[in-house]
Amino acid sequence: MPYAPYSRSCMSQKDMFLRACRCQPVERVPVWIMRQAGRYLPEYQALRQHYSFLELCKTPELAAEVSLQPFRCLGVDAIIVFSDILVVAEAMGLELRVPDSGPVLPDPIRDQRGIDRLRDFDPLEATPFVSQAISLLCHEAGPGVPALGFAAAPWTLACYMVEGSVRGELKRVKRMLYAAPDLLRSLLDRIARATARYLHAQLDAGAAAVQIFDTWAGELSAEQYEGFALPATQMLIQELNAGDAPVILYARGASHLVHPMARAGANVLSVDWRTDLSATREILGLGVALQGNVDPAALLASPEVAGRAAKRAIELTGGIGHILNLGHGILPDTPVENAQAFVAAGKSVSLTAVSAARGEM
Amino acid sequence: MPYAPYSRSCMSQKDMFLRACRCQPVERVPVWIMRQAGRYLPEYQALRQHYSFLELCKTPELAAEVSLQPFRCLGVDAIIVFSDILVVAEAMGLELRVPDSGPVLPDPIRDQRGIDRLRDFDPLEATPFVSQAISLLCHEAGPGVPALGFAAAPWTLACYMVEGSVRGELKRVKRMLYAAPDLLRSLLDRIARATARYLHAQLDAGAAAVQIFDTWAGELSAEQYEGFALPATQMLIQELNAGDAPVILYARGASHLVHPMARAGANVLSVDWRTDLSATREILGLGVALQGNVDPAALLASPEVAGRAAKRAIELTGGIGHILNLGHGILPDTPVENAQAFVAAGKSVSLTAVSAARGEM
Repeated sequence: MPYAPYSRSCMSQKDMFLRACRCQPVERVPVWIMRQAGRYLPEYQALRQHYSFLELCKTPELAAEVSLQPFRCLGVDAIIVFSDILVVAEAMGLELRVPDSGPVLPDPIRDQRGIDRLRDFDPLEATPFVSQAISLLCHEAGPGVPALGFAAAPWTLACYMVEGSVRGELKRVKRMLYAAPDLLRSLLDRIARATARYLHAQLDAGAAAVQIFDTWAGELSAEQYEGFALPATQMLIQELNAGDAPVILYARGASHLVHPMARAGANVLSVDWRTDLSATREILGLGVALQGNVDPAALLASPEVAGRAAKRAIELTGGIGHILNLGHGILPDTPVENAQAFVAAGKSVSLTAVSAARGEM
Repeated sequence: MPYAPYSRSCMSQKDMFLRACRCQPVERVPVWIMRQAGRYLPEYQALRQHYSFLELCKTPELAAEVSLQPFRCLGVDAIIVFSDILVVAEAMGLELRVPDSGPVLPDPIRDQRGIDRLRDFDPLEATPFVSQAISLLCHEAGPGVPALGFAAAPWTLACYMVEGSVRGELKRVKRMLYAAPDLLRSLLDRIARATARYLHAQLDAGAAAVQIFDTWAGELSAEQYEGFALPATQMLIQELNAGDAPVILYARGASHLVHPMARAGANVLSVDWRTDLSATREILGLGVALQGNVDPAALLASPEVAGRAAKRAIELTGGIGHILNLGHGILPDTPVENAQAFVAAGKSVSLTAVSAARGEM
């Protein structure tokens, strides 16, 4: 029997995850689900009877527990810390409220004065609960399971900080982009530097990788992305200086941004169902891994549909440099058994079989 | 002086519009604005003090008057009839309510029974007000101005008919796509046939062209678009049998769908700011004209920014086979003077000058 450094017996989920991020061979594609911890899970709903959303985020024991729930009940390969991207906005000095209708920053930024009031916070003082939750969940899950930290990309956090809440059009932040581009750039710059420190603290606490959510990047044209979102994301990733830890960059509805996103400095691009995995792999090659990209709505239908969607995504990349995930967060109405079927189907695909199906063996 | 069939003196706005739709030379790019009639205009707001939204739609004299307002105050080259895409859903038998928060179909379609209850309506009986409004506005504006009819594409109308109202994710219609694809296809089929008759009545009433709004196409992957939205749109365009009248197909956030959309049978693709005009022209050639694609947010900033955006769009197509427009409807908060500047700047571009700037002279 040949030497097999990635055989089932000796490769931990963390090794597998990190190897996939680096486009190195793995025996199967690692899988997790964006928003895997949350309101579609009965265990989570039960906790929410007793605690508010922000109490869960800010109590390390609870945040760690909520983070671990999907690891236990879905069997995912990575545990993302339970938190919210707006924690950074609050740490920078903006009031944050999270009613059931979604998060709101009631005193958003509209001018230079708003930017001047922002704080350059120390994560260990302002957001210690995030680091502590990561430490706790790492301890609980053991060294073989990758914990993931995360934050919003500068453009996406700027959307919330300028709009106050984001529903539909990004009118105010877009107006700033057109009417006061330097003001927006200085806000993006402040966010990028703060977020670099914030994510670094998560790596220090034990995160194996970090994901940067640029949820609203898809609202920008390529020209706008390259003029605003990209330089700020590049600065964030450079300042973060993640060392060996992979950086995953997510964007929604951003098939037109694949080229510039690949220049952000991230190891992995996380794309949605509108970005074709095989075409993107052909364009970008193996210099960047891909994460995604199943339509979350596929998990509303049935375990069979969810499982088929998982297998189809893996077929499209051949399982090389691929982390199976959804193209956006799991929907609140998703039946847990469909999410379980998605994960199980993804894990059942042997990459030898995929290679054979693609005629590569 | 050489014979100039499209000189300023003898070419009407209608000739110019129709020639642009067919990628024939014109002296300047025609311009209009999606949702050009509506709540950003004080004249419209004044009428809304006295009439509900649906009263305006369903009273031909009022609908014609509202349609003509932007022609008078912005100087646009085409007049789209004031109406709503959900008029077809109502004519097919679904109750329609339009509170200020947006249109709602309180009894949406969830199963075969819902589809069975739909009516195959006769537009002259069920929606005579649309045809009458078009006749009136054509009479008022004169034969040299193109009137535009419109309807939703089958997929987009199905989104509303299944969801009831669309805010954010399309959970129910997507679940139907995955769990009951044949049910969705039969709904799309019913809508396509009804819409073909509906649009034909608008052409009969005097519309020079029709636009099909597939606002929610961008939520689909290319595979989903080709499996559901595209065949229904193709059937609609085929059944419509528009003769010489151009068909414009609009989609939002659909840069990943440019190839299949070009196969729908439309003369013009209307794209948004995330679809690069020059790259799309290069891909599709001059077999299909392009409409768009300025970011509506550019019109929030200032007359200068709005004017620059108009000129930049024309530069990208060289003005050939191009109808200047926004990439989505004008935003309610848009200052009228910015919309005027957008139109004026677009009309000021001499195509000889553009060709020279591109080094083609």
